[in-house]
Amino acid sequence: MTSHETACLLNAGDSQARVSIWVYLTDRDPVGPYRVTVPPRRTMHVRFNDLDDPEPVPRDTDYASVIESDVPIVVQHTRLDSRQAENALLSTMAHAAD
Amino acid sequence: MTSHETACLLNAGDSQARVSIWVYLTDRDPVGPYRVTVPPRRTMHVRFNDLDDPEPVPRDTDYASVIESDVPIVVQHTRLDSRQAENALLSTMAHAAD
Amino acid sequence: MTSHETACLLNAGDSQARVSIWVYLTDRDPVGPYRVTVPPRRTMHVRFNDLDDPEPVPRDTDYASVIESDVPIVVQHTRLDSRQAENALLSTMAHAAD
Amino acid sequence: MTSHETACLLNAGDSQARVSIWVYLTDRDPVGPYRVTVPPRRTMHVRFNDLDDPEPVPRDTDYASVIESDVPIVVQHTRLDSRQAENALLSTMAHAAD
Repeated sequence: MTSHETACLLNAGDSQARVSIWVYLTDRDPVGPYRVTVPPRRTMHVRFNDLDDPEPVPRDTDYASVIESDVPIVVQHTRLDSRQAENALLSTMAHAAD
Repeated sequence: MTSHETACLLNAGDSQARVSIWVYLTDRDPVGPYRVTVPPRRTMHVRFNDLDDPEPVPRDTDYASVIESDVPIVVQHTRLDSRQAENALLSTMAHAAD
Repeated sequence: MTSHETACLLNAGDSQARVSIWVYLTDRDPVGPYRVTVPPRRTMHVRFNDLDDPEPVPRDTDYASVIESDVPIVVQHTRLDSRQAENALLSTMAHAAD
Repeated sequence: MTSHETACLLNAGDSQARVSIWVYLTDRDPVGPYRVTVPPRRTMHVRFNDLDDPEPVPRDTDYASVIESDVPIVVQHTRLDSRQAENALLSTMAHAAD
């Protein structure tokens, strides 16, 4: 069964959020950034399995993710598969966008 | 199956808490505020499906919520349906009431 | 089915922790304090259904709890029943014991 | 059934993280430290049942854990067995390594 890993992003602010997602792995350098844009006053659900630029997110391997945004957002990260239901509490970091 | 999304509000203080709930969506402006009042030294469970003023909470769509209170409260947010059990950790914000 | 609500207390410090648990309800004043003592460098699991002094914890009703300790402790609160698995993130408060 | 307790460690920094895990019990002194090293920019999943130095982690008993690292890391702790799915939110502490 495929894992359904999702990040729920909430941009409660009045400015667009430019978000970068990095996926950390056990045996190689992190992949990314995967970039998404969340409009002001909107929520967006990102399925990791749908991310494919710059490369598909590796499957069937342990990973962790770091999510950066140029404006403050709230992130809820959920993994769902047949064996477990778990929540990741990701720290969200705001940094100056390039 | 209907999702049973609940916010458990705890007002451990000695003053009534006037609470506003905003529901953020993916494709339109947030709806709300839904207003509830939690008496001092009480807990209250709010089912999102029961909220209907100013309008029913949209169903079968991704959303996120922001909960504001004029006095500090503790919020636990739980979504429960047949596919998943997940916890949302909502930031609770105290602000001056109008 | 009976709910199995548990608070896992961790006292990683070198002093005994005197802990007070208050249970907040929807329609009456909070009950408690239920008092437990966690020895230094020990963990303790408290089942709410086992608490009976000053009175049994009300069953089949919504409630929330506040846990106070005279030294810093870590609290994990878990509710388990046939319908749901959820985690409560309780704020732990250190205050001067009476 | 055996519990599958896992700590997911994320070292998003550029320095190796030397991590010490202490397991706290109800009736005896904590055991440990179990030591693992997380390379820079890597994630690592630690299964408690695999830890055996300085001694196997006690089974079939309540415990809690404290995880220390000499550089900041992110920890997600998951317990999984047939009866429950629960998340522990562990405080992660950075301290000067010996």
